[in-house]
Parts: sequence; structure tokens; C-alpha cells
Amino acid sequence: MLRENDAQGMTEFCRALHAAVAAEILEALEGRDAWTVLSHSQVPRQVKILRYMSLHSQVEIVQVADREPLSRLLEEMAPDDRVDILSRLDRDRVEQLLPLIAQAERNDIRRLLSYAEDSAGSIMTTEYASLPLDITVSEALEQLRQQAPDRETIYYVYLLDDQRQLRGLLSLREILFAALDAVLTDIMRRDVVSVPVDADQEFVARQLARYNFIAIPVVDSNDRLVGIVTHDDILDVVQEEATEDAHRLGAIEPLEDSYLETELLTIAWKRGGWLLFLAVVALFTAELLDMFRPTSDSADWMILFLPLVLASGGNAGSQSATLVIRTIALGEVVRQQGAKLARRELLIGGMLGLALASVGFLAAHWWFELSWIRASVVGVTVFLVVLLGTICGVLLPLLFRWCGMDPALMSNPLIAALIDVVGVAIYYGVRVLIVGEASH
Amino acid sequence: MLRENDAQGMTEFCRALHAAVAAEILEALEGRDAWTVLSHSQVPRQVKILRYMSLHSQVEIVQVADREPLSRLLEEMAPDDRVDILSRLDRDRVEQLLPLIAQAERNDIRRLLSYAEDSAGSIMTTEYASLPLDITVSEALEQLRQQAPDRETIYYVYLLDDQRQLRGLLSLREILFAALDAVLTDIMRRDVVSVPVDADQEFVARQLARYNFIAIPVVDSNDRLVGIVTHDDILDVVQEEATEDAHRLGAIEPLEDSYLETELLTIAWKRGGWLLFLAVVALFTAELLDMFRPTSDSADWMILFLPLVLASGGNAGSQSATLVIRTIALGEVVRQQGAKLARRELLIGGMLGLALASVGFLAAHWWFELSWIRASVVGVTVFLVVLLGTICGVLLPLLFRWCGMDPALMSNPLIAALIDVVGVAIYYGVRVLIVGEASH
Repeated sequence: MLRENDAQGMTEFCRALHAAVAAEILEALEGRDAWTVLSHSQVPRQVKILRYMSLHSQVEIVQVADREPLSRLLEEMAPDDRVDILSRLDRDRVEQLLPLIAQAERNDIRRLLSYAEDSAGSIMTTEYASLPLDITVSEALEQLRQQAPDRETIYYVYLLDDQRQLRGLLSLREILFAALDAVLTDIMRRDVVSVPVDADQEFVARQLARYNFIAIPVVDSNDRLVGIVTHDDILDVVQEEATEDAHRLGAIEPLEDSYLETELLTIAWKRGGWLLFLAVVALFTAELLDMFRPTSDSADWMILFLPLVLASGGNAGSQSATLVIRTIALGEVVRQQGAKLARRELLIGGMLGLALASVGFLAAHWWFELSWIRASVVGVTVFLVVLLGTICGVLLPLLFRWCGMDPALMSNPLIAALIDVVGVAIYYGVRVLIVGEASH
Repeated sequence: MLRENDAQGMTEFCRALHAAVAAEILEALEGRDAWTVLSHSQVPRQVKILRYMSLHSQVEIVQVADREPLSRLLEEMAPDDRVDILSRLDRDRVEQLLPLIAQAERNDIRRLLSYAEDSAGSIMTTEYASLPLDITVSEALEQLRQQAPDRETIYYVYLLDDQRQLRGLLSLREILFAALDAVLTDIMRRDVVSVPVDADQEFVARQLARYNFIAIPVVDSNDRLVGIVTHDDILDVVQEEATEDAHRLGAIEPLEDSYLETELLTIAWKRGGWLLFLAVVALFTAELLDMFRPTSDSADWMILFLPLVLASGGNAGSQSATLVIRTIALGEVVRQQGAKLARRELLIGGMLGLALASVGFLAAHWWFELSWIRASVVGVTVFLVVLLGTICGVLLPLLFRWCGMDPALMSNPLIAALIDVVGVAIYYGVRVLIVGEASH
């Protein structure tokens, strides 16, 4: 359709499919092509499809879209969603777009953009349903009918006094089945659980989970309602926090996008820092072994770097396994992507291996005063075990999955232990290749 | 109140507090005491409070509660919640209870109990709102009014034909704001996303997250509606699966209850199996080192067990850190519990240390033919590093948290690397203490 510029086909594509399905197909296209397709549908439909795409893909589209229709699109989007996108754009692009957006939305965007990342304010939406205290149920239903189209949820209705302070809560179910002439203030629940606007998103998630709410209200320091956080945003927060924790536990600086959408160099950088730091700690272990070593036997030098060799392979393997297992758990790997994953990890493994090998090589020569030949045994071994570690780290969990088992059974310590065995064989093999059997 | 058997006080306690708060206080009591307090309130209130308690505490209460009032309570509970409890009780207790429960609920329980664990069927509730296809909006509102009190959610209404096959969906918002004389079949959405009753709960979670639903319908093989899974249950599933993955990655067989509610021996068992297996792999590394070792120098034997010593401490530390960091992430550790956690881990570390030390000691003597004296150096060292590993694994993340940093920064590889350094010092220290400096 794109090749033939089939306008009618594209309109039909956006209209007929379920928005979540259309979004999935568009995600596979380049940002510019996805925008071309999208621009053939009405703005409300564009908003609906965009909502189902990953933040990464949304940003890609917004980067290339034409300013005029884009500003209409942004005006229509849910406040929390558009702020998520705008906070990822460069300052210049945002300043270009803002003048085209209506005054009310513009103020709203500036305010939401000002909340700290990972705070309740940054994930809330301002599209809540609210009512004054002193009206009757039938008046309430009339007002809700007017608010309904552009509110994210009307299933919880918040009752505010003249200062917009949060006084009570009624579910739509309660309003619907109350007597029509009852006054809201008499039937509302007064013990409303709310979170402050600067609360951490993890705290918000725990409160919502604890009370099984569909949404939780967010208040400012004067107890005025400023927004709500809905259950679907909390589900994202919970997944995001679990991924962040898993990555940290595997010694990877948390990625901002999903693993498959992150640049190779970014991943190498976020893993390399930790690996280098851990290598330095392993060199201290070597220093200790050096202090304790009982003889100055010529073969003894190999033992010193055993902790470095074993730790480097194991750590690189743990990192890869953590990334792959978490990506599988989030449902982002389909069967065909196994090969792509392995290729990526091979490249990253090569880069990390080179970096760690240099550290090992230079430390062996200058710190531990080995000859260049012996130091190169250490360097080459470290390179090989890091490469092996990354490959095993990605392939073993995928293998487990293909056998129908839980990929997480391939735990970090298990991968480290397996690489230990092979690492020792590689270490002595490389020694024989470079130095020969002479030292026996 | 319990000591004075203050009936009025207990009734007031259950009535006045928010159910979630009352639940939290009752969770701190023994099952029998909690039941005594609960039995002073009305059944609907009991159900409400119980819902907010952890499954572990619910089961504790149901184990000791009197059969007659308990059966009333079970009848009132949501079908998915009561089946969760019953599936944890012993067969005998269930058979005692079932005859006292009304026929309709009994059939429902038997059916839900028959679904496989972790399937859509096992987490769904049968309390959904449904309507026939051919009625008008005003008739629909009337029917919903009757269904409302005992349905988990009426915000999504499922439209069924005569065979109870799922034909369409309407949200309460759509029904409420449609023309009163419209026929449901003309305004309903037909592209309903549903999941099969035997689908894995992870798949259900992904579908619900993908479409941002409040609930997702569950159908049998004939496309008949059998239940719904609601957003709050999915939040639990997502947390549960993330915890399971984290535990597996840290080489711990997943726990069924939360860490703090699990028996010491169970935890030791679920960790010990993996630790022993990993120790055996480390012994193969030792075997390889033995093959390659260049001299038969008397001090060389210590090198063979270096991988075992380092891996045991690191693995035990990773396990403890994983358990503690995940427990903190779930918000289950309050400040005062740090000491309790450390005490638990110390005990578990002692048990695991003894087990691994025996393996190391016996393998060193019989497999690698060391003298009893030398083998005891290996055994004592393994015991000490495992103990050290568990203590560091629990204390370092808690320390990070007390300093206001993310406890997950204390990653598994970092803990392993730190224990490597200290482990080497301990190893040579123990050698000096037991064998003396003689071998120098």
C-alpha cells in the first residue's frame, strides 16, 4: 500500500483492524512510513492506535511527523501519554511544537513536564472525572454525561470542594444505583486513599495494588486533586521496576528502552562499566593471592589471574542471560528473533571482551610485572571467556525455552559455573598455544 | 481487647477502620486470635477484610476457624479468592467444609479447583456481569441493577447468546450514555479479545496489559464465557512471575509464599539443592585444574579448591541478596525488620554452610585424596565463606537502602566479587591456623 500510495487502503487499514493490532504492524515499519499510514486516518483514531505502540516507536513517529497535523494529534492525546513522548524529544523539537498547541493543553504539558521522573506526577493523567459535593445523583449523572467523552475513566468520581480539595469518592456503580434525589455528600465515601504528587511511582503502585483500585487520586501539598494514576499505567510501572531490578541484580545499568530497541553501543556501555569495575575487584583478589602464594614457581603466575578469568566470563554471561530472560518474560522475543539476539550479543561480547582483555593484559604486565608473552595469555583468555560467556548467556536460556522449559532455570550462578569449567580449559589451552609446554 | 474479650471493641475495630488497614493489623496476630476478632463482625465485612490479607494469612485463619461460620464466610467470598484458599488446605479439611456450603457454590468450587495451577481458569472469577443480546439499554440498566451487588466488576458487560457464547462487549460507560431504546446487539463491540480457560496466566497478563483492559473474558473450547480475570489479579500475577524469575536467576527454587512468611527449613531446602549442584560443577573445575597443574608442589592443592571456595561464597551471597532485594521491592520489609532478616539469614547460612562444607571436606579427602587435615582446611573455609556470603548478601542491600540508595545496586556479581577478595584471605588464614606455615 505504501509503495502504491494507496490512500484508501491505508484509511481502511487504520479503521478496520483492532487498534492494538494495527499498532503492532505499524511498529514494524520505519517512523516515516508509519506516519504516512497513520496520516490517512482521523485524529481520534490516530490517538487510539498510537496508545498501543511502545514509547520508543511513538517517539520515532513524532520525530518525523509534520508539525501541523502532529500538533492536532498531541492536543487529542491523553495528557500523561503526550508528556511521556515530549520528555523524550530534544528541547528544540518541543519548542517548535508547543506554539502550535492550544493554550490550555500547552499549560498542562508544561506543568506535567516539570514533575520529577518516576514521581506520581510524571505518570498521572489530568483527565479524571470530578463533581462538586452538593449536587444530587441525577445532576451528577447529567454532569458525568458531559465529562465522559474525554475522561480516561469515569468509574471513580472524585468529589471536590470549592478549593478543589479532595473530600470524597463515589464509584460509578454507587452513583448509578443510588436514589436519584440523594445528595452526593451524604452517600460518598470519605476515607479516600490518595498519594502526594511527588511520591515515588513504586509507592503509588504498592498503594493501588494494596487497595485493588482501578485508579488512585494524586493530590498536591494542599490536598487539592491534581490528577489520577490508572491501573494500566501501574502495570507498566510494575514491569518497568521489575526489569530495572533484574538488570541491576545482573550488574547492568538499567536500560531506558526495551532491550531489543536499545542501540548496541548503549548496551555495551551500560554493561562495560560494571564489568570493568568487577575486573578491578578481581585484580585485588589476584594481589591477595600474590601475597599468599607459597612458591615463586614459574607456572604459579597463571593462578593469580584465575579469579579474573573466571569472574569475567561469569559476569558477562550473567548479564546476557539476565537481559535475554527478562526480554522473554516481557513477551518481546518471538521465535524468529533468536538468531538476531545471538548476533547482537556476539558483537557486544566482542566489544566487552576487547575492553576487559586490554585491562587484564596491561594489569598483568605493569601491575604484576609479567612478561609481554605471559600477559598476552591473560589478555587472550579474558577475551575468549567474555565472548563465550555472552554467547552462552544468550543461547542457553533460548535453548531451554525451545525445549519448553523455563529459561530462567538457566540461572546466573549456573552459567557462571559452566563457564568456570570451560574457562579453565581455555586458560591452559591458550598458555600451551602461546608459551608452549615449556614451564612444565 | 483480645485479653479482655472485649466483644464491642472488636466489632468496632472491624467496622470503623478501612478494611485494608484492619487486615494489616490482623495479619500480625496468630491465626486463632485473628479469627476471634473477625468473628465479632458481620460476614460481608469479614469477606472484605480477608480480601486484603495475604493468601498465607488467609489460609492460617481458615485452618483454625470454626466450621459453621467459616462455611458462611466461604459462600460469600469471591469464587477465585476462595478457591485460592481451598487449594492450599489439606484434602481432609476441604472435604469437611464442602458439605456445609450451598450446592451452587459447591459446584463452582469443584469446577474452579479442577483448573491447572497458573492457568487462566485458576485465577478467574465467575462473578462477571452478562446480558442477553436482544434487550434495550433501559432493560439492560434494570438487569445490571439486580446483578450489581454480587459482581466483581460491572464496568465491562459481556453479551451472550442462548448457548452462553460470547458475542459482544459493552462498557458501562457506553451503556450509560447510549439512547435508552437502543438494542444492545446494535451498539455492542463485536471484536472481543478473550483468552482460553487453559491459557497460561503470563499470557493472560500480557493480553490484558496490551489492551489496557480492566478485565478480560475467559472462554471454554466452545467459545462459551466461563469467567473473567480482573486487573487486580493480573497485577498479582505480574509481581508473582517477576519474583519467580528473579529467584530462579539467583539460583533459588521459587518460594510459594513471600520470603518472610516461608519456613526457614523450606528456604534452606530450595537454596541448598542449587548450591550443592553448583558445588559439584566447581569440583569438576577443580578436576580440570588438577589435570593441568604443572607441579606437584605441596601448596598447590589449595589452588584446586579455589573455584569451589569462591563460587560457594558468591552463590550463597547472590541468593541472599536476590531474596532480600526482591522482598524490599515488594514493599514487605519495614525498617525494624532488618535485624530479623539478618538473624534468619545467619541461621540459613549456617545450615547451608555445614552442608556445603561436608561436601567440600569429603570430596577433598576421597575424590582428590588430600589428608584429613588438608581436607578440613577446605571444609572450614567453605563453611566460613558461605556464612559470610549470606550475611553480606542480606546486610549490604539493607545498608544501601538505609543510605537512601537502590538496594539492587548491590548486584549479585558485585557481592560475589567482594566475597572473592575476603574468601582468599579466609582460605589462607584457615590454612595457617590448621596446618601452620609449614608448607612454605
